[in-house]
Amino acid sequence: MPRPTEDELIARYFAPLAGEGGLSLRDDAALLRPRPGHDLVLTTDAIVAGVHYFPDDPPASIACKALGVNLSDIAAKGAEPLGFLLTLALADDWDEAWLADFCTGLSEAAALASSPLLGGDTVRAGGPTLIGITALGEVPAGTMVRRDAARAGDRLLVSGSIGDAALGLKLRSRPAAPWGGALSFPARASLVDRYLHPRPRLALAPALRAHARAAMDVSDGLVGDLAKMMRAADLSAEVEIAAIPLSDPARAALAAEPGLLDAALTGGDDYEILCAADPAAVPALQAAADRAGVPLAVIGTVTEGSAPPVFRTPGGDARPFRSGSFSHF
Amino acid sequence: MPRPTEDELIARYFAPLAGEGGLSLRDDAALLRPRPGHDLVLTTDAIVAGVHYFPDDPPASIACKALGVNLSDIAAKGAEPLGFLLTLALADDWDEAWLADFCTGLSEAAALASSPLLGGDTVRAGGPTLIGITALGEVPAGTMVRRDAARAGDRLLVSGSIGDAALGLKLRSRPAAPWGGALSFPARASLVDRYLHPRPRLALAPALRAHARAAMDVSDGLVGDLAKMMRAADLSAEVEIAAIPLSDPARAALAAEPGLLDAALTGGDDYEILCAADPAAVPALQAAADRAGVPLAVIGTVTEGSAPPVFRTPGGDARPFRSGSFSHF
Repeated sequence: MPRPTEDELIARYFAPLAGEGGLSLRDDAALLRPRPGHDLVLTTDAIVAGVHYFPDDPPASIACKALGVNLSDIAAKGAEPLGFLLTLALADDWDEAWLADFCTGLSEAAALASSPLLGGDTVRAGGPTLIGITALGEVPAGTMVRRDAARAGDRLLVSGSIGDAALGLKLRSRPAAPWGGALSFPARASLVDRYLHPRPRLALAPALRAHARAAMDVSDGLVGDLAKMMRAADLSAEVEIAAIPLSDPARAALAAEPGLLDAALTGGDDYEILCAADPAAVPALQAAADRAGVPLAVIGTVTEGSAPPVFRTPGGDARPFRSGSFSHF
Repeated sequence: MPRPTEDELIARYFAPLAGEGGLSLRDDAALLRPRPGHDLVLTTDAIVAGVHYFPDDPPASIACKALGVNLSDIAAKGAEPLGFLLTLALADDWDEAWLADFCTGLSEAAALASSPLLGGDTVRAGGPTLIGITALGEVPAGTMVRRDAARAGDRLLVSGSIGDAALGLKLRSRPAAPWGGALSFPARASLVDRYLHPRPRLALAPALRAHARAAMDVSDGLVGDLAKMMRAADLSAEVEIAAIPLSDPARAALAAEPGLLDAALTGGDDYEILCAADPAAVPALQAAADRAGVPLAVIGTVTEGSAPPVFRTPGGDARPFRSGSFSHF
């Protein structure tokens, strides 16, 4: 069966995902009429087979990750998604079944986030498949939550739970890891699910806009990303390790193998929100987050100075971490 | 010498290119305040080493092409550029000298077009280098020039000259091609230059908005792209081959080797503008184009019907073309 041309691919797989501004993907460009009184928020992130995901991950999961990592940035800025553009660079061995599943996953992830496809480009990668997405969001003018705006004395908060995806990646790479035996099958599956399927915390956006001073998403590990946020503000931080929110499966894994704490806090792929808030704003921020269905836990405090953030054990000792941040680059 | 980290790359090479909305590339997202009364125009195109350009092309030229192919779409829609986001997926053998030259070229192309860098992502490609760009433009609300809006009886016009880049690609691939001997060195160099360095016709945008009914850029060959524009409107077209604007070097090449006409009209990489205009609007459109310094030549007429456009020789015969369109996919 001959492979479809790019125009056939667009008509068959991508046009059904197109939002109104996508002009059915039959023009050279997409059209978007910004809402008066709003700012646009733009972000772009690419994932590559063998670098950011496993080539044999389910295509729908890969699509979910490609869109999710971008929408996570949109959420962290307090923005509501408007849509996205897709660059799909396909490895030479792609087939239509893969593409159909990829588009199903993309369609579901896009619908969940009310973020339609606005346009795209499909090319031959000449190597591993790459999926690049540029996501657009909007905020009421002047309300984007910046990364660099934390102040000394602010409380630091983290959404959801940290480390699940990094532990899931370990299980994905080595299903027979000894510590995995301490976990139930559903617990193991939930960790792998967190690795495969980022859940961008879009529900938190209004709470962040209203109550947070600074925010970013946790994509490269909490340790490294907090250091990045503090560097941007020329500040430091103190974090209570015991206050970092962990899921039950992650707790079980760490109980079986305490050394996994490094992976959990530096491994990346969390796609949770890290934010800083005035202590007086924390109750309202947490209440708004609870109403949005996403818990936000206080994990520490922003401090003066430019030293890397300090992570303290319950005994008060500073716990060093092997790697500041996981980099895919 | 150890390679720089992604953060170092951003600070050293990309932050100097950042526009105001890029927040010095130190946030997770870019911020853009749309002008009231304007629509946004968005497009994304990627180029891949070995597919869309030669891996040993000068890095500054590669950057010029990556941005140019996107700004060409912005121009064709009658839009003014606002900025762009960059996805740079680097092959494993990249070095800093390449990247520095790439960024120099990108900086110059961006400055020429008043189109600053707004954000980006740098990843390992695991294969050939890929450069993906999402470009943003704006038009006064409701004035984007569509691809599908031509009407029967409209005149068809093309900017600049057609076929230079396709002939330049032939010379780039085979410098000793016999027909090349009929051209002077500057003529050969100018063809190769057209292949390496697209010149997005941004100067034409106001004229297109004011006077054209439909437009698209010519990127995959005039024959195929005209067919695409006519399919979008469910119409056909008649084109006088002798009216298609050719540069002096292209004329010399075709005189030496008439068979090159196929390459010239189907080979792609022109990045000229193809547009349709009401016959009554043509004089004003051409005058505005002349004032903008970009000639627009009438090449034919939009006709009823859904057959592929017909290209006529001076004798009136229909001249078939081997390939409808060049596809990089």
